[in-house]
Amino acid sequence: MAKLYFRYGAMNCGKTTSLLQVAHNYEEKGLKVLIMKPSIDTKGGKCIVSRLGMKRKVDVWLKPKDRIRDKIHLQGLSCILVDEAQFLTPDQVRDLWLVAKLSDVPVICYGLRTTFQTKFFVGSAPLMELADELEELVTICKCGAKAKFQARKVNGVFVTEGSEVAIDGENDVTYESLCGKCYIQDVLNIHEL
Amino acid sequence: MAKLYFRYGAMNCGKTTSLLQVAHNYEEKGLKVLIMKPSIDTKGGKCIVSRLGMKRKVDVWLKPKDRIRDKIHLQGLSCILVDEAQFLTPDQVRDLWLVAKLSDVPVICYGLRTTFQTKFFVGSAPLMELADELEELVTICKCGAKAKFQARKVNGVFVTEGSEVAIDGENDVTYESLCGKCYIQDVLNIHEL
Amino acid sequence: MAKLYFRYGAMNCGKTTSLLQVAHNYEEKGLKVLIMKPSIDTKGGKCIVSRLGMKRKVDVWLKPKDRIRDKIHLQGLSCILVDEAQFLTPDQVRDLWLVAKLSDVPVICYGLRTTFQTKFFVGSAPLMELADELEELVTICKCGAKAKFQARKVNGVFVTEGSEVAIDGENDVTYESLCGKCYIQDVLNIHEL
Amino acid sequence: MAKLYFRYGAMNCGKTTSLLQVAHNYEEKGLKVLIMKPSIDTKGGKCIVSRLGMKRKVDVWLKPKDRIRDKIHLQGLSCILVDEAQFLTPDQVRDLWLVAKLSDVPVICYGLRTTFQTKFFVGSAPLMELADELEELVTICKCGAKAKFQARKVNGVFVTEGSEVAIDGENDVTYESLCGKCYIQDVLNIHEL
Repeated sequence: MAKLYFRYGAMNCGKTTSLLQVAHNYEEKGLKVLIMKPSIDTKGGKCIVSRLGMKRKVDVWLKPKDRIRDKIHLQGLSCILVDEAQFLTPDQVRDLWLVAKLSDVPVICYGLRTTFQTKFFVGSAPLMELADELEELVTICKCGAKAKFQARKVNGVFVTEGSEVAIDGENDVTYESLCGKCYIQDVLNIHEL
Repeated sequence: MAKLYFRYGAMNCGKTTSLLQVAHNYEEKGLKVLIMKPSIDTKGGKCIVSRLGMKRKVDVWLKPKDRIRDKIHLQGLSCILVDEAQFLTPDQVRDLWLVAKLSDVPVICYGLRTTFQTKFFVGSAPLMELADELEELVTICKCGAKAKFQARKVNGVFVTEGSEVAIDGENDVTYESLCGKCYIQDVLNIHEL
Repeated sequence: MAKLYFRYGAMNCGKTTSLLQVAHNYEEKGLKVLIMKPSIDTKGGKCIVSRLGMKRKVDVWLKPKDRIRDKIHLQGLSCILVDEAQFLTPDQVRDLWLVAKLSDVPVICYGLRTTFQTKFFVGSAPLMELADELEELVTICKCGAKAKFQARKVNGVFVTEGSEVAIDGENDVTYESLCGKCYIQDVLNIHEL
Repeated sequence: MAKLYFRYGAMNCGKTTSLLQVAHNYEEKGLKVLIMKPSIDTKGGKCIVSRLGMKRKVDVWLKPKDRIRDKIHLQGLSCILVDEAQFLTPDQVRDLWLVAKLSDVPVICYGLRTTFQTKFFVGSAPLMELADELEELVTICKCGAKAKFQARKVNGVFVTEGSEVAIDGENDVTYESLCGKCYIQDVLNIHEL
């Protein structure tokens, strides 16, 4: 039976690179993949872009009201790949779970685990509840440890309040991927129990 | 830096056996562990009991209002083990994360991922948001696949409605651990997309 | 397609406990398992014994010349479990791989990764070459880190020479599970590059 | 304590892409990495080349007689990355293990697990014996399952005999990455136990 995968990781950990590599691996064998992205992620428009410089047009640009079953033809499909999966709706995640389990097509979702406040995104929670495999992709904190969280900066200063979604590079917002300890000390300003 | 672990799995996958084995491994080296259990889990009282027959008294029986920092002395402690961690409060999970990160004592939480309705328990969500390592313990579905969900039965019939917590064996309630496909087909009664 | 698993770990990490838990999980669902052990492991005779106190008779006691296909009936079998799998012969490992792949019965092998000299056992090497899943079971080093190697002591003193197999507790031989750093420093006596 | 990682996988699974992503992640944080490749791998010369099109010069081109400690300066180094690590000598692997454990610099080795005959390469065996983390990178078999082995073809026909190393694309040699079942059936021509 096919699996629903959630490959999660902090910003800049290589999620899109990994997605593009998987697509390449399938296609090299003559197998067909479908790449989807929620439309909430406006960065890059209808393309997905890896920071290593690779780029590719998505096959399906999912709006929040779209249901998966209306947007895809499973016939001949070997794998479904979803970028920025933290922006899927719970219904869309549930649909993808049904696709994997009832149609035997693997679904690999790449996305952030948590917001800049270490809380789930709307799509991350159901992915964490339902996915067969939870696989972490890691990047590096400034201290050299594994970065697992993204902290938001406004004008270069860490903030703990603000809207859930704010795009990197717009309105003076930037992000930094941090390990748990650096997040606790530098963002939450907690230094002892 | 010490890690916060969440070892999750469906009912009867061996979580308590694994916890007792870890405690044994530490103690055999002369290292001290602390075993905690949320008081919401009334089954077994102040003991944890493995279905393989092993039993052990817990060191700390956590009430929902208890804060971790008031209940433990970290001095000389090599590891904190939590059974039935799905019943921790978000504040308690956050405290345990701080303990791991600021005091360098590893914290290993064992618990259910989701309720009989495939939704997080109150403690599972923050554990999934914060834990350094998410490690699945699996058991077997009746079909031979890996069971990842627990379905509730009342008088032997699968139900999809009811209170979040209902104890196995009381009030005609029983549970069955199922794989995703059997859960979808047998509990949700969905057979095609 | 069924998988060949190699669950490896240092001495006293709970391999046999885990095997017995898996057997219990299958049998609780009414599914049949077969437990095998190479006869080279004379400790415990035709039983496997967990250090947590559990014990069970093996179904097949494999001599080095035995071929797997002559010793098992796959009919009605849901899982094959092998304890002390580091003592399997390469032919036996290959047979088990064929069983998993051609007969669709999962095979779960528990064993040591390496000898007291950090070299593969005769059965560990082919398991590491062929297994679908390599899963580590860890125990704790005296320093609190994860122990991955077993060091041999004769009369309480670490040794680096001797026969590959020497039974714990006989002829003044004992073992200690150590992390890499403690092994390098305390057994190999290397303290800098 | 830093870890020695062995990230293994069949040909064309994306090992070099992953290595380049890790290097990028470190360097983006202002941290220094060192990239090494054994000279036995003549393909690409003193560069590593990803099939997705990325390319980068290696910092150290290791000859079989080179000892690691003579080729690197650990000062200021945050990570060592090794491509084609299956061609390392056992001494070099041991050196890298000592670097991780005694100098606290993580070492991430990417390489093939086994030859076209499903036997370890000279460098894969000690990596499998010593690495702290064994992490599999997968690609896809023609059947859609995970490919774990590489089969060699000469003039398009699977072969089971020949020299251990033969470069892809030279002397009519090509490779195909296969899952276990396809390898057993199509290369070994075994169809039943």
